Amino acid sequence: MTRTVVESKTKTAIIGFDQPFCVIGERINPTGRKILSEELERGDFSRVEADAVAQVMAGATVLDVNSGAVFSNKMAEDPRYADNNFVEPTLMKELVERVQAKVDVPLCIDSSVPGALENGLAAAEGRPLLNSVTGEEDRLELVLPLVKKYNVPVVAISNDDTGISEDPDVRFAVAKKIVERAADFGIPAHDIVVDPLVMPIGAMGTAGLQVFTLVRRLREELGVNTTCGASNISFGLPNRHGINNAFLPMAMTAGMTSAIMNPVALPVGPKKLAAKKEEVLASGIVLPEGMDDEAFCQMFGLGSTKPKAGKEMEAIRAANFLTNNDPHGGEWIAFNKVGDSAGRAAGGRRGGRRGRG
Amino acid sequence: MTRTVVESKTKTAIIGFDQPFCVIGERINPTGRKILSEELERGDFSRVEADAVAQVMAGATVLDVNSGAVFSNKMAEDPRYADNNFVEPTLMKELVERVQAKVDVPLCIDSSVPGALENGLAAAEGRPLLNSVTGEEDRLELVLPLVKKYNVPVVAISNDDTGISEDPDVRFAVAKKIVERAADFGIPAHDIVVDPLVMPIGAMGTAGLQVFTLVRRLREELGVNTTCGASNISFGLPNRHGINNAFLPMAMTAGMTSAIMNPVALPVGPKKLAAKKEEVLASGIVLPEGMDDEAFCQMFGLGSTKPKAGKEMEAIRAANFLTNNDPHGGEWIAFNKVGDSAGRAAGGRRGGRRGRG
Repeated sequence: MTRTVVESKTKTAIIGFDQPFCVIGERINPTGRKILSEELERGDFSRVEADAVAQVMAGATVLDVNSGAVFSNKMAEDPRYADNNFVEPTLMKELVERVQAKVDVPLCIDSSVPGALENGLAAAEGRPLLNSVTGEEDRLELVLPLVKKYNVPVVAISNDDTGISEDPDVRFAVAKKIVERAADFGIPAHDIVVDPLVMPIGAMGTAGLQVFTLVRRLREELGVNTTCGASNISFGLPNRHGINNAFLPMAMTAGMTSAIMNPVALPVGPKKLAAKKEEVLASGIVLPEGMDDEAFCQMFGLGSTKPKAGKEMEAIRAANFLTNNDPHGGEWIAFNKVGDSAGRAAGGRRGGRRGRG
Repeated sequence: MTRTVVESKTKTAIIGFDQPFCVIGERINPTGRKILSEELERGDFSRVEADAVAQVMAGATVLDVNSGAVFSNKMAEDPRYADNNFVEPTLMKELVERVQAKVDVPLCIDSSVPGALENGLAAAEGRPLLNSVTGEEDRLELVLPLVKKYNVPVVAISNDDTGISEDPDVRFAVAKKIVERAADFGIPAHDIVVDPLVMPIGAMGTAGLQVFTLVRRLREELGVNTTCGASNISFGLPNRHGINNAFLPMAMTAGMTSAIMNPVALPVGPKKLAAKKEEVLASGIVLPEGMDDEAFCQMFGLGSTKPKAGKEMEAIRAANFLTNNDPHGGEWIAFNKVGDSAGRAAGGRRGGRRGRG
């Protein structure tokens, strides 16, 4: 049975066919997050620390740490900052240290910069996951020796020098090549976690079926664990959570064993809060003096001003149960007893509904 | 490609591997519904008619009509009413006629009483689905001739004279026997919709995996469509919708093509409404004069006093899209544009979320 073992200082997370789905929190990633980049540039790690805590509370068992920040202000003063090879190694080290000081879960060291990968591996306690190698020749030659040197598992993304193929057979062949090349380095298949690449279903109607078929083949023919950037599937569509909530259990049925995703339902923001307050007041409702925002949100079914587990976590926990990876439903029952669980927040009805007559 | 064709007077529903999931509404069923039985005994069909309309509005494309009522009052006066063979044939005819007068969707004639099956088949316009035959010898000899005579498709439940086996291989063998016996009658496999029998996951941890494996085998080895009483999977568990919402997309990934289920989210009842009002008033909130119940529910995020599509329908529609049975997501986009869709009601966030960095 394929098992990929990742560790923090004291915690172990196992990715495997006979394990609950491994949720790798994706939030610690400044790529495309301008505010976070600016904070990191100023040496402000408070959002990273809050994201780390919130994701673990929501159910992430591994945290991705990506150092892809752009330091625009420093760049203006010192041209070296325009080069990610200069920025990321230092930043990765500090990110890893800051996150480890806050939470004790295995990390996933995520960068396209070799120096950042090496610094992350050196700074991480335990046995982190490396993210990532691809089928590109230069990446294989660069990343696999690191994987071997640090004896860590690695995410293998199934694109190569020709790019990302829309043909799933080509993506399978790329994954196979990476597994074979890794074997040449003495890296076992159970330390390769293949990302078969999830295309947006809005752009390619076969995107879902491709993933399900690929995951099954990767599991049966190569014996590897799999992961994906789960939210890509719903890119550009309305009600993305509705798509994601179905996609994750479906991928798990096909044999997917982990995903890089956001486990946290974003808290109710000031804009949504203000709009609801306006609606409430316009209706003629009189609020009591000093009702705080959290009490207001609870009362009007708006969610919470605090981060909590997203609906995807409910879907994954249900699917863990349905794939027999939650013995006797202990996790499911505990999850649904928590007052602020996603299930409760959405008003899920309990029991009493008759089976088929 | 296996296609099971069911028809009403003017509408066709196709159950098939290349079709959107077929939702067979289960609500018109007095079994275990005492109030409904009493209403039917008095000749009051208003709830049946309302259930028919609500289920079609919520997305059912076929309606199950079950005549298993118990007429307790009439029984006291006339002992013949203790016999379902006396009660159901007359009742089934009237149920079918009443439902057909309200909605134009194919019906699923559901009874354990031969006379009710025959009366239902005679009364139904178009090509109904018959529910059901089992692997029991007397049922095979009784139901298959009806199937042949009326040239209709039939639900085949995989239990036999030895009962319901917990061994999925035995259930597969029973299904195979039914398909073979049907062939002897000249009934093609594409007119058999096998129910592999869904056990409660709370009682049997392998219940989900059993169904997924069975459905795949039924599809690949026998070429038949499949259905199930979907809500059985979550029997006895907290947050049943959370389990059902994951189970349906998972079953669809394995190849399940229909389910007998409740597509309607039950409206907010008087008890829940009263409890929320009490909570609201206790908090010091002052409601405007004459705020009606529906406005109250909307304002306080309680759902609706009117029936609407349940969350399971969102999960199924997402899974239709993900199995490439919703070309270009037209149905998904339309579903999420409707103001009172389940997706909107639950406050699903839109777009703007970045893909994997």
